[in-house]
Amino acid sequence: MADDSTNPQRPELKNDRYLRALQKQPVDATPVWMMRQAGRYLPEYKATRAQAGDFMSLCKNAELACEVTLQPLRRFPLDAAILFSDILTIPDAMGLGLYFETGEGPRFRDPITCKADVDKIGIPDPEGELQYVMNAVRTIRRELKGEVPLIGFSGSPWTLATYMVEGGTSKAFTKIKKMAFAEPATLHQLLEKLADSVTSYLNAQIDAGAQSVMIFDTWGGVLSPRDYKDFSLQYMHKIVSGLKREADGRKVPVTLFTKNGGQWLEAIAATGCDAVGLDWTINIEDARKRVGDKVALQGNMDPSMLYASPERIRQEVATILEGYGNGSGHVFNLGHGIHLDVPPDNAGVFVNAVHELSRPYHKQ
Amino acid sequence: MADDSTNPQRPELKNDRYLRALQKQPVDATPVWMMRQAGRYLPEYKATRAQAGDFMSLCKNAELACEVTLQPLRRFPLDAAILFSDILTIPDAMGLGLYFETGEGPRFRDPITCKADVDKIGIPDPEGELQYVMNAVRTIRRELKGEVPLIGFSGSPWTLATYMVEGGTSKAFTKIKKMAFAEPATLHQLLEKLADSVTSYLNAQIDAGAQSVMIFDTWGGVLSPRDYKDFSLQYMHKIVSGLKREADGRKVPVTLFTKNGGQWLEAIAATGCDAVGLDWTINIEDARKRVGDKVALQGNMDPSMLYASPERIRQEVATILEGYGNGSGHVFNLGHGIHLDVPPDNAGVFVNAVHELSRPYHKQ
Repeated sequence: MADDSTNPQRPELKNDRYLRALQKQPVDATPVWMMRQAGRYLPEYKATRAQAGDFMSLCKNAELACEVTLQPLRRFPLDAAILFSDILTIPDAMGLGLYFETGEGPRFRDPITCKADVDKIGIPDPEGELQYVMNAVRTIRRELKGEVPLIGFSGSPWTLATYMVEGGTSKAFTKIKKMAFAEPATLHQLLEKLADSVTSYLNAQIDAGAQSVMIFDTWGGVLSPRDYKDFSLQYMHKIVSGLKREADGRKVPVTLFTKNGGQWLEAIAATGCDAVGLDWTINIEDARKRVGDKVALQGNMDPSMLYASPERIRQEVATILEGYGNGSGHVFNLGHGIHLDVPPDNAGVFVNAVHELSRPYHKQ
Repeated sequence: MADDSTNPQRPELKNDRYLRALQKQPVDATPVWMMRQAGRYLPEYKATRAQAGDFMSLCKNAELACEVTLQPLRRFPLDAAILFSDILTIPDAMGLGLYFETGEGPRFRDPITCKADVDKIGIPDPEGELQYVMNAVRTIRRELKGEVPLIGFSGSPWTLATYMVEGGTSKAFTKIKKMAFAEPATLHQLLEKLADSVTSYLNAQIDAGAQSVMIFDTWGGVLSPRDYKDFSLQYMHKIVSGLKREADGRKVPVTLFTKNGGQWLEAIAATGCDAVGLDWTINIEDARKRVGDKVALQGNMDPSMLYASPERIRQEVATILEGYGNGSGHVFNLGHGIHLDVPPDNAGVFVNAVHELSRPYHKQ
């Protein structure tokens, strides 16, 4: 891949607020994007998905994955695009047989139950079984035409392991915890393989054109502080240490997001990541005090606030902006993915409110 | 009811470790009980439940509710008994029509959808529609014969409201949050009625013989810090202020437990409660530093640790005891209810480990 921004595949970036904020460099307004911004709340997404067939067919079709990635950017002045894909591509490429049951979420045909299952799995080749993801990254990067940066992502090893061992989504995570507490060596072996897989997967996304990467640790928050460090954080730390941190002559910032991880902010910030994602259960003012200048912060409005009136949404945005306070280092986002039944206009109110109301906090 | 402990209905308490620890009075060993200690992991529970028919029939039969309350005490040297009942008795008594769908959890036939629904509901009479609960309390207190204290309980107003508005269990709580953010006055009206109902319900349990009460705020942790104070904590605070705090000449301690509320410990401790329940996502050593001498702490082993080997269970108990450190003020418990597929013997290992390993921390 070419490394210069005069390459037509990689035109110069027109809006770099998002990348600058992640590095705490001055910006004119707080950048904003929304987790799951390409999704079912948009009628145009539903139309493209219907065209693709099922969800994984949409992920595996680079042109259609690019189309849905760009859809929210046509509606709202978002400051970043995020690769449209699933967090479970890696376990699927490992041969576990991902499928989706209507209303039930993701499932695996062959979940991990014992050490023999872990022994069998290998590290997927990002330009082999996972090439469809890299093709999507290349296509999106090209089609973005430098408007905003492209975010690549992966699930965290612990979060991927929960689905692989539970066989799907879970409420109490009893199977993986049984493995964690009764057969820790087996689980660590699985997590090692996942950490290596995620590292090569994210590095390949960076090679393919991702300008920033994010690791989603959706289920790290179900662990005790000791177990979080042992089974989740140490593997994210390993990944952060193994990532390419520069591409096209520019820093590639890394964001770690552990849902319900507000109690462990300092430990997450100490991994060497550039930013920490916050859900809405933490006060962003306290979070900033706790991490100091170490990292940028991303978040943290309750996604359900998008059900409220425009006035209430603007009020909540104002409260969070005031909580973060003056200066750069804040990427505004929801504290989790946007809900599928949110009126799209309310998402627009939210995005515009962030830009409009944040300018006073960025006066030099 | 008679107020003296010479009453044969209310014999003198033989083991008061639990009540003493909640008041930070010296004890010989750390008291221990388990949330959901009367439950499906015990074969004798399943037998009694089969005899009763469905779950609510078991709750409504004072003799059988007493039987299942006492069952775990026959197996393990637990330091407290807890009333066998459901947290949804109040909404059921309000006329919402509680029922249980196999594998689906609780449901309401007539959920709350608007202000007119809230206007209609009244404050249930604890010795009327809810008399079956008071009968169970009286029966259990008598049959305990003073062995250990009896804990009464209720769901928190916010937690009850989530079930009443969502119509059952929920993952994203979008209906109640829509109400919270779009129609806050309606939700506050509902929460006021629930706070009054819980206060009279718990006071009636105290009159009927409960020697301590606990409020379960299972879903407070899905709120932002601002919304938690507004929609959950202020109503628990109101209840705490309205409770009878003495019975039979002895303090009736109150424990508040917000699952995933570790970030808000100081605020919970400031309500005037005697103890704060901790789930396993917080380090108990940090928790004790944060609340100081203000309250006792209850918790906080991950219930999934009971899947591990006896050695691993004992090791985890030792770590938590060391975390709390010297002196009284700790009631050992799981951080949430015991799982239904835990081997009963492992629960025994846990209870015995707490008593045995805690003695050195209580040397005068």
